[in-house]
Amino acid sequence: MLYREDDIQNMDQRYRANFINSLSGFKSANLLGTKSTSGQENLAIISSVFHVGANPPLLGMIMRPHTVPRDSLKNIKDTGIYTLSAVGSEFTEAAHQTSARYTDSEFTAVGLTPTYSATHSAPYVAEARLRIGLEVKHIEKIELNQTELVIGQVVEVYVDNSVVSVDGYIDLEHLQTACISGLDTYHKSSRIHRYGYAKPHEALAKID
Amino acid sequence: MLYREDDIQNMDQRYRANFINSLSGFKSANLLGTKSTSGQENLAIISSVFHVGANPPLLGMIMRPHTVPRDSLKNIKDTGIYTLSAVGSEFTEAAHQTSARYTDSEFTAVGLTPTYSATHSAPYVAEARLRIGLEVKHIEKIELNQTELVIGQVVEVYVDNSVVSVDGYIDLEHLQTACISGLDTYHKSSRIHRYGYAKPHEALAKID
Repeated sequence: MLYREDDIQNMDQRYRANFINSLSGFKSANLLGTKSTSGQENLAIISSVFHVGANPPLLGMIMRPHTVPRDSLKNIKDTGIYTLSAVGSEFTEAAHQTSARYTDSEFTAVGLTPTYSATHSAPYVAEARLRIGLEVKHIEKIELNQTELVIGQVVEVYVDNSVVSVDGYIDLEHLQTACISGLDTYHKSSRIHRYGYAKPHEALAKID
Repeated sequence: MLYREDDIQNMDQRYRANFINSLSGFKSANLLGTKSTSGQENLAIISSVFHVGANPPLLGMIMRPHTVPRDSLKNIKDTGIYTLSAVGSEFTEAAHQTSARYTDSEFTAVGLTPTYSATHSAPYVAEARLRIGLEVKHIEKIELNQTELVIGQVVEVYVDNSVVSVDGYIDLEHLQTACISGLDTYHKSSRIHRYGYAKPHEALAKID
C-alpha cells in the first residue's frame, strides 16, 4: 500500500508517532547518563544515537525538547559531558522503564547501577558491557521541528578487549547488545555476514 | 579494558574506523536512491539514517564527502528528492556491493531492480518491502568534520499494510529488515519484547 503525504498528515498523532518512528529501521539502544551540577544522577533511554565520524571520533543524537530526556539535555549543557551505555538484551525492561517521569534518580528507580571511571564524572551503567564517555562539541536547534542536535566527542570507551577484533571491529552481537524498532520494541540480533571491502566486478568476500 | 583519548588517537586509521563505527550500536540498513539531472540512477548503502521527528515526518542522515555517496549527495542537491529502501536480510550482499566505486548504475551492477511511484521521480528498490520517498528540507555542513547533515521530509511510504499494527507500529522484523554493526556486518533481528508506556512505580506492560 502506498501512503501519501495526506495519509500521513491525517494520521492520529499517536499512530503517526509509531508509524514514522518505524521508518528509519532498527535503531541503537543506549542509556544516556548525566549528572546535574547539584550531583543528581540522571539516566534516559535514547534510540537516536548515530555515527558522525571516526576522526575525530564523534557521535550525534537528537533530543526532543518536550520528552523526558530534557533533564539530560540541561545536564549536558551545564556540565559539558555525558555517557552512553549500550543496552544489553537482558536489561531492556529496566532500560525502557527509564522513560517514565521520575523525579529522583532513574538508576535507583529501575534497578541499574551507576559506576564511574577515574577520568569522567558522568555516570555509566555498570551492567552495560560497552560504555562510552563523551564531551559535548556542538549543540544546535533543528529549526524544522525545534529538536536539538547534540554532537559529542568520544573521550573514553570501556569494553572487554576480547570482543574487539584485530581490525578494531567490536562484536556487538557477542556483547548481546539490543536494538530498537519504533518507539518501544527491543530486539536481539543474529549475524547474517560480515563483508569485505566492495570492489566493482569482484564478488564480495565474507570475512566471518 | 578502558580505552582513553590517547589510545583512540593512536589507533591506525582503519582500526579506528572499525572501532568508532561500532560504538553507536546497531544501525539501520537502507539503500539511498537518487537520479541525476541527466537521468542516471544511483544507489548507495547508507547506515546513518535516523529519526528526527514525526510531525512533520523527518529523517536525517550523515553524508561523508569523500566516500561513495558523494554522487548521491550531488543528486539530492540538484533534484531535491531521494528515496530510502529498507535492506531485506536476503539481499544484504547486493546492498553492500553498492559501496563499490561504480561509474554506471549500481542497480544494474549489483542486480537490484529500480522501480518508481507515479508521484516521486527518484528510484526505489523493487525488492525492498519498505520504501520511503523524501523531499530535502535542510542540508548543512557539520564544521567539526566536514560531513553533511541532510534532513528530508517523508512524502510517501510504500509498505504492505498487513505489517502495520492498529497503532501504527510497522513490524520490521516481520518484513525481515536487516541492521548493520560497524561498517560492514549485517544482522537479522529477533524480538525480545514490545513494552507499553512507562510510568513511575508501575510494572512495564508487555504488548507483544
